Amino acid sequence: MKKVAVLMGSISDKPVLDKTFAVLDELKIPYEGRVCSAHRTPERATEFVLGAEQNGFGVLIAAAGLAAHLAGSCAARTHLPIIGIPVQGGGLGGLDALLATVQMPPGFPVATVAVNGGENAALLAAQILALEDAGLRERLLAYRKKLSDKADAADRELCQALKQNG
Amino acid sequence: MKKVAVLMGSISDKPVLDKTFAVLDELKIPYEGRVCSAHRTPERATEFVLGAEQNGFGVLIAAAGLAAHLAGSCAARTHLPIIGIPVQGGGLGGLDALLATVQMPPGFPVATVAVNGGENAALLAAQILALEDAGLRERLLAYRKKLSDKADAADRELCQALKQNG
Amino acid sequence: MKKVAVLMGSISDKPVLDKTFAVLDELKIPYEGRVCSAHRTPERATEFVLGAEQNGFGVLIAAAGLAAHLAGSCAARTHLPIIGIPVQGGGLGGLDALLATVQMPPGFPVATVAVNGGENAALLAAQILALEDAGLRERLLAYRKKLSDKADAADRELCQALKQNG
Amino acid sequence: MKKVAVLMGSISDKPVLDKTFAVLDELKIPYEGRVCSAHRTPERATEFVLGAEQNGFGVLIAAAGLAAHLAGSCAARTHLPIIGIPVQGGGLGGLDALLATVQMPPGFPVATVAVNGGENAALLAAQILALEDAGLRERLLAYRKKLSDKADAADRELCQALKQNG
Amino acid sequence: MKKVAVLMGSISDKPVLDKTFAVLDELKIPYEGRVCSAHRTPERATEFVLGAEQNGFGVLIAAAGLAAHLAGSCAARTHLPIIGIPVQGGGLGGLDALLATVQMPPGFPVATVAVNGGENAALLAAQILALEDAGLRERLLAYRKKLSDKADAADRELCQALKQNG
Amino acid sequence: MKKVAVLMGSISDKPVLDKTFAVLDELKIPYEGRVCSAHRTPERATEFVLGAEQNGFGVLIAAAGLAAHLAGSCAARTHLPIIGIPVQGGGLGGLDALLATVQMPPGFPVATVAVNGGENAALLAAQILALEDAGLRERLLAYRKKLSDKADAADRELCQALKQNG
Amino acid sequence: MKKVAVLMGSISDKPVLDKTFAVLDELKIPYEGRVCSAHRTPERATEFVLGAEQNGFGVLIAAAGLAAHLAGSCAARTHLPIIGIPVQGGGLGGLDALLATVQMPPGFPVATVAVNGGENAALLAAQILALEDAGLRERLLAYRKKLSDKADAADRELCQALKQNG
Amino acid sequence: MKKVAVLMGSISDKPVLDKTFAVLDELKIPYEGRVCSAHRTPERATEFVLGAEQNGFGVLIAAAGLAAHLAGSCAARTHLPIIGIPVQGGGLGGLDALLATVQMPPGFPVATVAVNGGENAALLAAQILALEDAGLRERLLAYRKKLSDKADAADRELCQALKQNG
Repeated sequence: MKKVAVLMGSISDKPVLDKTFAVLDELKIPYEGRVCSAHRTPERATEFVLGAEQNGFGVLIAAAGLAAHLAGSCAARTHLPIIGIPVQGGGLGGLDALLATVQMPPGFPVATVAVNGGENAALLAAQILALEDAGLRERLLAYRKKLSDKADAADRELCQALKQNG
Repeated sequence: MKKVAVLMGSISDKPVLDKTFAVLDELKIPYEGRVCSAHRTPERATEFVLGAEQNGFGVLIAAAGLAAHLAGSCAARTHLPIIGIPVQGGGLGGLDALLATVQMPPGFPVATVAVNGGENAALLAAQILALEDAGLRERLLAYRKKLSDKADAADRELCQALKQNG
Repeated sequence: MKKVAVLMGSISDKPVLDKTFAVLDELKIPYEGRVCSAHRTPERATEFVLGAEQNGFGVLIAAAGLAAHLAGSCAARTHLPIIGIPVQGGGLGGLDALLATVQMPPGFPVATVAVNGGENAALLAAQILALEDAGLRERLLAYRKKLSDKADAADRELCQALKQNG
Repeated sequence: MKKVAVLMGSISDKPVLDKTFAVLDELKIPYEGRVCSAHRTPERATEFVLGAEQNGFGVLIAAAGLAAHLAGSCAARTHLPIIGIPVQGGGLGGLDALLATVQMPPGFPVATVAVNGGENAALLAAQILALEDAGLRERLLAYRKKLSDKADAADRELCQALKQNG
Repeated sequence: MKKVAVLMGSISDKPVLDKTFAVLDELKIPYEGRVCSAHRTPERATEFVLGAEQNGFGVLIAAAGLAAHLAGSCAARTHLPIIGIPVQGGGLGGLDALLATVQMPPGFPVATVAVNGGENAALLAAQILALEDAGLRERLLAYRKKLSDKADAADRELCQALKQNG
Repeated sequence: MKKVAVLMGSISDKPVLDKTFAVLDELKIPYEGRVCSAHRTPERATEFVLGAEQNGFGVLIAAAGLAAHLAGSCAARTHLPIIGIPVQGGGLGGLDALLATVQMPPGFPVATVAVNGGENAALLAAQILALEDAGLRERLLAYRKKLSDKADAADRELCQALKQNG
Repeated sequence: MKKVAVLMGSISDKPVLDKTFAVLDELKIPYEGRVCSAHRTPERATEFVLGAEQNGFGVLIAAAGLAAHLAGSCAARTHLPIIGIPVQGGGLGGLDALLATVQMPPGFPVATVAVNGGENAALLAAQILALEDAGLRERLLAYRKKLSDKADAADRELCQALKQNG
Repeated sequence: MKKVAVLMGSISDKPVLDKTFAVLDELKIPYEGRVCSAHRTPERATEFVLGAEQNGFGVLIAAAGLAAHLAGSCAARTHLPIIGIPVQGGGLGGLDALLATVQMPPGFPVATVAVNGGENAALLAAQILALEDAGLRERLLAYRKKLSDKADAADRELCQALKQNG
């Protein structure tokens, strides 16, 4: 299977990406995690992205906050799909990172997920890779079923709790 | 090649999607376009999405404005990757559609592109499908090169124009 | 009396809805509370809403956060009045849930109350049901009087406190 | 059938309410339209609202822009359900009117629809009144069917147009 | 001297108004504080405002949060100057209260101060009343001088602290 | 009667202030209009404000757009009441000017009116000056009555129009 | 004198930069204008920036819209001061470009001017270069004087116009 | 070397500026820190700015919150480059201070950095002064290298940590 690259602009973004790692682990998707800043280490970031396809990566996930340029910077240098995670930081609730990630100009899309959406970034990568991987497709469907089951269980508990009060 | 489904919440969103159709045509990606509202035709939308994989679709693009639920509604019913295009409408500049599209809860990602980003939605679909299609990969790289070339040409013209003024 | 259905997208929304349950209890309005996600359990949600009228429900209350689709998803499937509660979550203060709830396209209104407005959702349901229920009308008027009385009492205490300082 | 009162803060809001009148006419719901400002004619507005129940009104629709107080001002004086339409005006795209309408304090809900949502306000009123009126319920279902049919027709036209191009 | 009325929509707004009371006390401006809700006690609020001029009030200060209607509701019923204090509450940082207070339609101004600007509301009232009261004018100038002096002192301390570090 | 100073940061703000001038004329309030920028002519602005009280001014109105500093700059230099008009300009709908005008720090209030609220600025000045001027008080009440009458007339016309259609 | 580089993400940003060119011309500051996209031509942009100091540039101006990454991308690759101009585009009034330009992480400042602030970008470059260039300092002061004079003239015209009306 | 003036509107802004002082210390740039309010001490602020060039200052840094006028007020009185730091305060996350700082009218730029961007303000000042100071240029490059090195180290640690988990 192609690997997923999980890039973060700063190590301080790691808590958001721990959810990404956990989902990728659970779905048995191979990945590498890197601290790779569009501003502090632009050459290393560029080099990584330019070599990503050849090095076996199929999807890149890039997480950054504030004027979040990392995902867009990746999008400029590879035709592989880039998933952007806007990370909340500072006082604006992540609106800055969201707009800086999603409002890409024509030609260079970033597949943006919700602010701090580390879990969804991994799932989106899985959905993409599952297009050609029946095993992953099964694991993904199982993951989704687990979410439904959990909601069903919560529903039953609520019904019971309300009945006991009623 | 797997097909791309291009869904719009209302026929009034078509101008944004004409750019999508044009890119898909240029990249020779097979697609179907449908008017398919999460609110006005929920059963038909559900049925379409539930059958999408079996009917040969690999990626879904969903465009909607205001409280844009179409993409999320698709995401709830298939594990295929969903690309969401927030469409500008009303007085809030598309911020409503953007937030209603991108802020999906854990479990159900929508790969959101910029407000009115019809061209980028098609390119993102192409990037996904190109993972397993060398021909499409070539056409995608050619498309990107055309954008660079156009920027280079604009640069040369500007330089010349400024010299003549200087 | 027709019943009120109180739907929440996630059990984590329950604190907001505890105020809803409390008001419905106080006004002696029969209700059922359900965890019923537009994304995790779309078929169960659809089924519930399609059967709501027949099952004796008169009003639906739907609470959800982020890209809050639950209320709109209900509105697409029943002509019963839907009351939407945007729930605050993440960094955007509930603005995302508010816009995703209120900005419904023509044809499918959601009667939106304030962010986290669990108490007002119950009162709005009561106002609707009281149109044809004289007893509920009395209880509703008494509830409103209690609010006025409380404000009057706070006013008297303040006046006294200021006089003692003065 | 109970009547609907359609109040506008200023005659300049009438274009938004013409859609309201049209839907009420189509659904054969009796109504009265009034210019009734929370600021310019507060006593007349108060008087109207205080007498509304006795004068046969079942639902009030209030439309206003900017610091839109009309709906909230009604909500303070009657237990009848109030539907608020935020009207876009000035440079803030209606965000001011939306927040001033929807963010009501506990005790006094306003059933808020989308910015400029004149059509949906009428439909919400119809949904409320249809709870006890089988004929209106039929007309409402027919109205909703017309919307679905129109979307279906647009879908067929689009499919055909795309085929002819393809 | 004419009195200042200090109205709050809810006793929960009092912390913001304690700064108002403190400034009015310091400037020896007579005032009354009241809990007086536009929604919970509209008749008492109206009565108070209609009688304000006759009862010796010259300026009204009205503080409220969320869909803050209190100041505008006062403005509709008296030609006395109304000072509005938007109170922060809920998740939107006070933006809702600010817009609901300041965006008044032509004819009915509310002199709006900053979100939670309890101190400034008192000072603005003092500035208005000082137009015809030489003693108050002196006390106001002294108050302003105290602020400058405090800034000057902070400046000297900072300079000294930086020198000792340098 | 004390005069009103009407300051604009740029002559391009004049259309907003023409409404101010018109109301001041109608209410027979003496005024002077000046172009007086906090940035382009800070010394002249300062001088004007420092001399305003002595030159017979009782209230200052300051209109500016973008990072609107004019009103705050006046507030720093006189204890006379300052009325600020945020002027819409650029793409942000006047939100920048509104926040830059209203969010004054403790000690230096600006009585802010709505974005582009030229008419209300004049009325607020009138309300302040009318505290000690019985004639102006009468003219102000007449002005308000005219607004009510106009709303009443619009109401009658609407009723008649709806009857003829009905 | 060191040169100023004027970079634009797209030739469509040129109208904003024509004001930049005009000011630089008037102040006799040597400059080059380039179309240089962070996304479409990242290598050429990088190369330009890396060579900028050696090629005689002292300041870089970078203008871009939407998810405006150009200025930040320059900041990552040179220690020369970078001036960022957020360009308005799409429906969000330039807020996206503003946040994507100004909210740079620690280490890599972008000296951001107002949305569409082409004139101010040139003036800021001039202010920087004038620190070591007495002639430019004089021209800059003359430019500022011209602005004051123009405001003074507008002031005189306004005074006269108001007198003739009065 | 020319000195940097570090002005703060209030001593409460000092925590943001402690980062500024630390960077200036590290880069051996001489500076003075002052509490200098546009509103509380306008004359002292004006005097300081008017004398800044003569007193050996080359760059001014101005930090302020809310309706942040300090930087703009400086820009009006000197042609030296002004760096503005919007300081977060109150409920709006610093958006008020950002807009009040950056949206300067044509003629008077403020080089705005991120909300609470104390470190970047110092670095921008260093970038400006380094244009004519080879030693500072070296120290600045070393500072930037330290940031890259730190990101590289974090990257290595992350890789190792992920391997140990894998």
